[in-house]
Amino acid sequence: LATSKEFHSPVYKDEIPTPALLLDLDLFERNLNKMADFLNQKHIDFRPHAKTHKCPVIAKKQLERGAKGICVAKLSEAEVMIAEGIQEILITSEIVSKSKIEQLIALARQCPSLLAVVDHPQPVRDFMEAAESRKVKLNVVIDIDGGNHRAGCLPGRPALDLADLIARSNWLKLCGIQCYAGHVAHTVGFEARMKSSQEALERALESKALIEKYGFPIEMVTGGSTGSYNIDSQIQGFTELQAGSYIFMDLDYRRIGSDRGKVFLDFEFALTVVATVISQSHPNLATVDGGFKAFATDKPFTPELKNITGVSFRWAGDEHGILELGDPGQEIKLGDRLEFLTPHCDPTVNLYDRLYVVRADRVEDIWPIAARGKSQ
Amino acid sequence: LATSKEFHSPVYKDEIPTPALLLDLDLFERNLNKMADFLNQKHIDFRPHAKTHKCPVIAKKQLERGAKGICVAKLSEAEVMIAEGIQEILITSEIVSKSKIEQLIALARQCPSLLAVVDHPQPVRDFMEAAESRKVKLNVVIDIDGGNHRAGCLPGRPALDLADLIARSNWLKLCGIQCYAGHVAHTVGFEARMKSSQEALERALESKALIEKYGFPIEMVTGGSTGSYNIDSQIQGFTELQAGSYIFMDLDYRRIGSDRGKVFLDFEFALTVVATVISQSHPNLATVDGGFKAFATDKPFTPELKNITGVSFRWAGDEHGILELGDPGQEIKLGDRLEFLTPHCDPTVNLYDRLYVVRADRVEDIWPIAARGKSQ
Repeated sequence: LATSKEFHSPVYKDEIPTPALLLDLDLFERNLNKMADFLNQKHIDFRPHAKTHKCPVIAKKQLERGAKGICVAKLSEAEVMIAEGIQEILITSEIVSKSKIEQLIALARQCPSLLAVVDHPQPVRDFMEAAESRKVKLNVVIDIDGGNHRAGCLPGRPALDLADLIARSNWLKLCGIQCYAGHVAHTVGFEARMKSSQEALERALESKALIEKYGFPIEMVTGGSTGSYNIDSQIQGFTELQAGSYIFMDLDYRRIGSDRGKVFLDFEFALTVVATVISQSHPNLATVDGGFKAFATDKPFTPELKNITGVSFRWAGDEHGILELGDPGQEIKLGDRLEFLTPHCDPTVNLYDRLYVVRADRVEDIWPIAARGKSQ
Repeated sequence: LATSKEFHSPVYKDEIPTPALLLDLDLFERNLNKMADFLNQKHIDFRPHAKTHKCPVIAKKQLERGAKGICVAKLSEAEVMIAEGIQEILITSEIVSKSKIEQLIALARQCPSLLAVVDHPQPVRDFMEAAESRKVKLNVVIDIDGGNHRAGCLPGRPALDLADLIARSNWLKLCGIQCYAGHVAHTVGFEARMKSSQEALERALESKALIEKYGFPIEMVTGGSTGSYNIDSQIQGFTELQAGSYIFMDLDYRRIGSDRGKVFLDFEFALTVVATVISQSHPNLATVDGGFKAFATDKPFTPELKNITGVSFRWAGDEHGILELGDPGQEIKLGDRLEFLTPHCDPTVNLYDRLYVVRADRVEDIWPIAARGKSQ
């Protein structure tokens, strides 16, 4: 269509077709710098999790700002990042199927610093066989369950057994331990979160000591999140933080509390969804053009208007949200464009193909979310 | 990547990289035919809602099987369908911003049968002005609130006022009334749903009578859903069904009940998500590679294993789900590929770029979900 380009390349923020994902460039840069500076001071390596943004432009900015590498959740995300020239990549989810192991080996050939996690002897044996038959060296990291039983081997003996098995192959190299405890990131209350993260990492650090006692050096202990960035970085032996959401922020993180109070606002809300009021036929109600396909819905709370008080959002299907105008801080009328804070940033970003990067009323850039939908 | 093609073009079902969206071709064709035959017998036009599948291949099959046209929810979906050669399109959501109205006019120039809904005088005036200035005729449908206050004007006088306003422009043509009541589709219990749908459509049919009394003919009354397909089709004056989900089915529809019992299985579960067990370190638990990015999460229930009893799924983050192996009907082990029924098909489909079309153990075809993410 001859007209597509003009509609997709808005100059002003108000011309962006809604619903759309906005990134406030000033706030984004503050988040980018704040985490980089903090970890630099603490002498902790940073490997930000790109599953949050799925955007090679952002990954490169994180690397320019000192990150040692990036994390991705899946092989297909790694493929996108490698195609964009990014080399230092840890894939944080287990890879077990034969066809994906073949794909992993093919990527490792292009990208010798690629890291893959293992938590079970069977895939380790499959890694060995594939690496040897293709004559490709493969870097592996032992994933240890942080206590939420989602992924990772049990700490102690099972972790040592994996290290021992890995050492039997000349084609595999043991590069470290991963311990990510999903339940820690969103534990509400700083003290409770600190306790929870310390317990989780203790499992990894005891396993590290055991594995090293048997002669296998462990140089990297990687894990943690935005919620534990200033907790894990204090723990002796922890080497590398995987935080992702800090770059955008969301409502789920705001509620976890900080060491300074009931809300966590160590990072700023750089990410919003902009939607338009498309129907208004009833007093105290207004309908916007964003619903289940515009916001992730995995949290028990709904999107929140960025700058307007006294209004609540309720889901109204795939394409709609209804605003209840209890006591709105400003008039809301048909055609208004409204910005919302998102309940959960990662799966919300995964709904969109591009980030509109804005400063004041201008669109400064459009960054492709190149790994969107790459869940394989 | 030289290797990409081979990984993305699996020949056998077991080679599809997970998580992935599978379409069982036999069940799909039965759903396709059953609805077409039913509405044909009832002499009701069919305009299936493409917001469910976002897939031009499926839209064309629906048209070949006798559908009068298709619905889309958004302008950007219409753009995709028109680019694929589909002409008979109703956009079911209100369009109010100036830039989208310009885009609508540009599409109407290419596609003279395009239909847009209105529920407020201001956009009607904006439509008039844009249509006149571009010298393009625009077909409009008056959207009437079915009672859930999501979109649509109030029935009666406000609807008549819109008809009167539309008639003042030579560039607009009034083509009908839309009345979609989102709350009806999922009303549990056939009798309750029948009552609810009749009440909703009554509002539209009374408005039709009023508008026609003032000399404006209304040839089309469009609305309804998979949940009301055998209710609305019995209502005198209703002309066109917009059902979408019938082609795939989901857990939310199963629970609404039918005229024959407690579950609604008038259509079959043609759509599943296949995921792989990637971690299994704990008794009675297994972790699959699908979470919030693999399934829509807007319903209060979780995905369900297609053919295995005694197992429940719980969410475990963006990329993971945990299976609780209470009393599994078959052994579940590391590397197993498992098929899940989805809680809500439309927003789940919107997470994927392609449908793997399968018959027995083979991949028969891959259909692009070309309008995925087109929520604008």
